[in-house]
Amino acid sequence: MAAWACLALCEVACSRRPAPAGYVAAAERMRRAGLADEGAYEWLSRLTGVGPRLTGSPEAATAVGLAAKMMTEVGLDMVHTEPVTVTKWVRGEREEAAVFGPSSSGTIPLRVCALGGSIATPETGITAPVIEVRSFEELDRLGPAVKGRIVFFNRPMDRTLTEPFAAYGRAAEQRVRGAVEAARHGGVAALVRSPTFRIDGFPHTGLMTYEEGVPRVPAASVSTADAEVLSFLLRKGSQVVVRLKMSCRTVGSVPSANVVGEITGTELPKDIILVGGHLDSWDLGTGAHDDGAGCAASLEALRLIRVAGLRPKRTVRVVFFMDEEFGGTGGRFYAAAEARQGERHLVAMESDRGGFLPVGIAAGQPGSGVLRRLRAWRALFEPLGVTTVGPGGGGVDVAPLIRKGTVPAAVIPAAQAYFDFHHSARDVLSSVHPRELEFQAVLMATLAYVLAQEGI
Amino acid sequence: MAAWACLALCEVACSRRPAPAGYVAAAERMRRAGLADEGAYEWLSRLTGVGPRLTGSPEAATAVGLAAKMMTEVGLDMVHTEPVTVTKWVRGEREEAAVFGPSSSGTIPLRVCALGGSIATPETGITAPVIEVRSFEELDRLGPAVKGRIVFFNRPMDRTLTEPFAAYGRAAEQRVRGAVEAARHGGVAALVRSPTFRIDGFPHTGLMTYEEGVPRVPAASVSTADAEVLSFLLRKGSQVVVRLKMSCRTVGSVPSANVVGEITGTELPKDIILVGGHLDSWDLGTGAHDDGAGCAASLEALRLIRVAGLRPKRTVRVVFFMDEEFGGTGGRFYAAAEARQGERHLVAMESDRGGFLPVGIAAGQPGSGVLRRLRAWRALFEPLGVTTVGPGGGGVDVAPLIRKGTVPAAVIPAAQAYFDFHHSARDVLSSVHPRELEFQAVLMATLAYVLAQEGI
Repeated sequence: MAAWACLALCEVACSRRPAPAGYVAAAERMRRAGLADEGAYEWLSRLTGVGPRLTGSPEAATAVGLAAKMMTEVGLDMVHTEPVTVTKWVRGEREEAAVFGPSSSGTIPLRVCALGGSIATPETGITAPVIEVRSFEELDRLGPAVKGRIVFFNRPMDRTLTEPFAAYGRAAEQRVRGAVEAARHGGVAALVRSPTFRIDGFPHTGLMTYEEGVPRVPAASVSTADAEVLSFLLRKGSQVVVRLKMSCRTVGSVPSANVVGEITGTELPKDIILVGGHLDSWDLGTGAHDDGAGCAASLEALRLIRVAGLRPKRTVRVVFFMDEEFGGTGGRFYAAAEARQGERHLVAMESDRGGFLPVGIAAGQPGSGVLRRLRAWRALFEPLGVTTVGPGGGGVDVAPLIRKGTVPAAVIPAAQAYFDFHHSARDVLSSVHPRELEFQAVLMATLAYVLAQEGI
Repeated sequence: MAAWACLALCEVACSRRPAPAGYVAAAERMRRAGLADEGAYEWLSRLTGVGPRLTGSPEAATAVGLAAKMMTEVGLDMVHTEPVTVTKWVRGEREEAAVFGPSSSGTIPLRVCALGGSIATPETGITAPVIEVRSFEELDRLGPAVKGRIVFFNRPMDRTLTEPFAAYGRAAEQRVRGAVEAARHGGVAALVRSPTFRIDGFPHTGLMTYEEGVPRVPAASVSTADAEVLSFLLRKGSQVVVRLKMSCRTVGSVPSANVVGEITGTELPKDIILVGGHLDSWDLGTGAHDDGAGCAASLEALRLIRVAGLRPKRTVRVVFFMDEEFGGTGGRFYAAAEARQGERHLVAMESDRGGFLPVGIAAGQPGSGVLRRLRAWRALFEPLGVTTVGPGGGGVDVAPLIRKGTVPAAVIPAAQAYFDFHHSARDVLSSVHPRELEFQAVLMATLAYVLAQEGI
């Protein structure tokens, strides 16, 4: 049988075995209720209205209170906060950099920002010649030439990869490990090209790490436009000296919280379908895509189940995790909390890939029961334009649950633009499209409801 | 056999019968060449740099010359223009409206624009009480109450429809036929709510029509925000009077042109795979999504075939049609041109749904050979995230070809935001994402090349 014939047959077979009529009707009710308005965007508007929600910041604390209030407004059966101890880091007042170029034309300012977790420079800054590398291997090869230099990690995201998260993954190691690798070779600071496909003037922050036994040196991100300038000056051959000043510092441990709400299951209340995102954000923008959108869509999903008058058999829970960005503390605290005793988390659906139009669903292992069922019932999602159902899912916040056997799931948004905004001053409310975000909420509501009825 | 089992089997079958290795390699070369850069966006930047390209305008004439120049730069085997006679309409200097509200608080300005093809108001404007309707049926029921009034057509796009083009189609009849329906009942002008999901201050223009034997009255579009204000004032119960002033007019017939270029087929040069968009635009923005994007992606598709070193057996032709917006003259002239003698247009792929990320392919009739083959070979498109291949395609410009038997095809973009921009001042270059547009170009290149090799 030719492949197309099999496909055609399969389509017929599927259309003859649609999802149960009750689910189709429920999905339609939630879809109509969602699209009639911009509920998810309203939640997002309120969350981003708090401002940047950097872990440990006063704004993050305000967001915890607001989140609990919003969950209460939805009329959930239970809303509470759960304590999390997080590390507080502050950017400080001063972060600046400038090139003393090879010519005598004065200095050229560079748009930079401290990377999360970095130490400060001395108050007078660090002034040192710059050496550019594209990989850690290149750094190794340069060896002694690195000593006393500011190491400029300038490997761009690979544009030819179609999957932006894959391109990001390959570039972001420069940010995460750049300071350690630089210091290992005697470098005095790390200056990292922002991981974005755009050439613009916005530096992108994000977590960096230090390593026991390796000297700690400051680490900053530089905008792609300025990275190009710096690279151009270095190609001209003369010595390029940069002065970097930052006053960021780690304050220490402070108390914070996850925010948890649920529609309690009518038959199996201890069986849980979790949806969620992370409440903290970076501090340059207001964390609209990352990850206000995930929180807003998750909460809206529960609201849609409510307004559609549905009573799920199993519990549908929404969790706004604290501190995804500084290492996932909230996710670990949640999984380890005493309140988890006796609970069974069947599925955890984290939304943390931007508030864009969903184009696919990822769930479970290849060949798993959850995946098979969602594929068989794609008629529930096709009205939203979502036809792709494949294995996958997961995320930093739910990773501790997944390790204990919870099935991961996720909606997959069309995120080609995500890294335009990610961790930068551009990640603000206006970068999210109200209707695209609402599609995401409707899809999450549909998935959560069906999974709560069917289990895995 | 359970539906999921059939699906699973089918996936296995398909994966065992992949597209020929040569096509996979060709698709990858074009994909890498496209994504490495922002070629389509560069073309778009130059096209929109001309300004609004209203049919018959000096800018449209400039765009014809520029388009031919750009096609020549790509190194096509043939580039020429083909004459089209179009109707020139001009907006004129003045378009304004204001409400004389029920209170004595003075006038409230309304953001309006003349609809394309409308006559002007008298120089002193039309001042008349407003009557609001949501449908032509409601207008019919009101009957004599309409006489002497400005008819305010205020039916919003139906947000609960998932397909924005369907919602637009149902709302846009107010714009197209509003003046005729108003005049038929003695109305003195038509004021139409802009068809967009957004509530904002941008009026959206577009074509309106008159009818033989029905008096011609002016027709304008009003922004959704102002439509809400007007409706609010009317709900308060008092009489609401609006003054509308417009100085638009139809100038008459002027010469213009389609722009045509091709990579001539090595074996069957008279067999043609056509890709294209329309070169003209509305005059409020610069026609970036509508339809600079379609032109830019089409031209980029041919460039990618060239830079990948491919020599298609059949001709791949790009056409920038003139005057889609004022009725599709360019499409009719193209199909009827003497140059078409001896040519066989196998497939016509028009891109006119915005420059967004492509999420699907539409081609031919259900069950047709083209559709079956594209479905069987979706491995060619899946690296772009495109997994949906269904029947459909077509558009105003290629409709005359389709009527003669050419198979329609189209890339389907994720266009939930399209009507935010469509026909308004917001439709400018910055509303298009370079990488999303490039995905569209790569997909069109892949489709065009495979169709040129395989035929239908």
